Amino acid sequence: MIDFWFSVGSTYTYLTVMRLADVEQATGITFRWRPFSVRQIMIEMDNIPFRTKPVKAAHMWRDIERRAAMYGLPARVPASYPLKEWDVANRVAVLGAAEGWAAEYARATYRRWFVDGLEPGSEPNLSDSLAEIGQDPVRVLTLAAASKTASAYEAATNEARGLGIFGSPSFIVDRELFWGDDRLNDAITWYRRGTLAP
Amino acid sequence: MIDFWFSVGSTYTYLTVMRLADVEQATGITFRWRPFSVRQIMIEMDNIPFRTKPVKAAHMWRDIERRAAMYGLPARVPASYPLKEWDVANRVAVLGAAEGWAAEYARATYRRWFVDGLEPGSEPNLSDSLAEIGQDPVRVLTLAAASKTASAYEAATNEARGLGIFGSPSFIVDRELFWGDDRLNDAITWYRRGTLAP
Repeated sequence: MIDFWFSVGSTYTYLTVMRLADVEQATGITFRWRPFSVRQIMIEMDNIPFRTKPVKAAHMWRDIERRAAMYGLPARVPASYPLKEWDVANRVAVLGAAEGWAAEYARATYRRWFVDGLEPGSEPNLSDSLAEIGQDPVRVLTLAAASKTASAYEAATNEARGLGIFGSPSFIVDRELFWGDDRLNDAITWYRRGTLAP
Repeated sequence: MIDFWFSVGSTYTYLTVMRLADVEQATGITFRWRPFSVRQIMIEMDNIPFRTKPVKAAHMWRDIERRAAMYGLPARVPASYPLKEWDVANRVAVLGAAEGWAAEYARATYRRWFVDGLEPGSEPNLSDSLAEIGQDPVRVLTLAAASKTASAYEAATNEARGLGIFGSPSFIVDRELFWGDDRLNDAITWYRRGTLAP
């Protein structure tokens, strides 16, 4: 099993979220979906890759657009960024991970963000996303706001920090960290052989 | 032809510099070696990816180590970073581009940096690197210090900035920018087909 650490609101994470089911089927490898707050860690590190760097941001959107096409995914870019309701979007994912529907939620909210132009975590899109995957929005939003979910979110972020994670998506294979959608193949190779050497 | 924009002193550029001759042979595509000052552009953008971010830097070195093995390249990491003599190392590359030996110089100085642990641009390593590729160090260092080379270095950096380049290595295919050693395959695909879509 490979741990897939992600935050809803990371742009490149779109590429991984949307293709991971196909990757699981093609490789036979199971991925465990681990939501956490990459934003908290990035703030702690003073790591601001895009918000204050328009030239780098422009390349990021174009790169995602090109690579989405490579994977056969639609992508209306630039998507709205950064998210206004980052933490709500991710507390819901944390609850989903505990209850077993994190992947479905992530796919629904990312599709709405990158295809329909609707921000994860903002209403009415959040409730509509939950309804779309068969979850009761009132129940989920109540539980997502509860202290138990807040604690689980914080614990996951602390665990990610302890693993040296600083970005989303990240993959952990035997404590080896691979960062970025473009390192998913490396993570798979490492899982199978423990090295990238031919 | 694909333009390969690089700065000696960029860490990931090691992976591209050392494999580009093999890539040219395998693909039949010619790459034009274009040295510039990525540091100047990064300072202008307040883009400091590693120096103040030890966790991100640790992943960078491990990632380079793993991917060097993937390409069959040796890599003694972490290499000393950042370079003390960045501009000298790159002014020599600019002269080499004008005279036709930039690739040989880049390979020699990167091999010495990542295999022998010797910093590009610092003496006696710089002179030894030049002697290794059959260039007279006194002649080269005199010309590299001249205003003509300084102007060419500045002009190259201005051209890079105008193309939206903000990192090294970068590849330009028909004004399309691809950033990173991990985008070299994308650049090649774009050169051949004008899209990454299957």
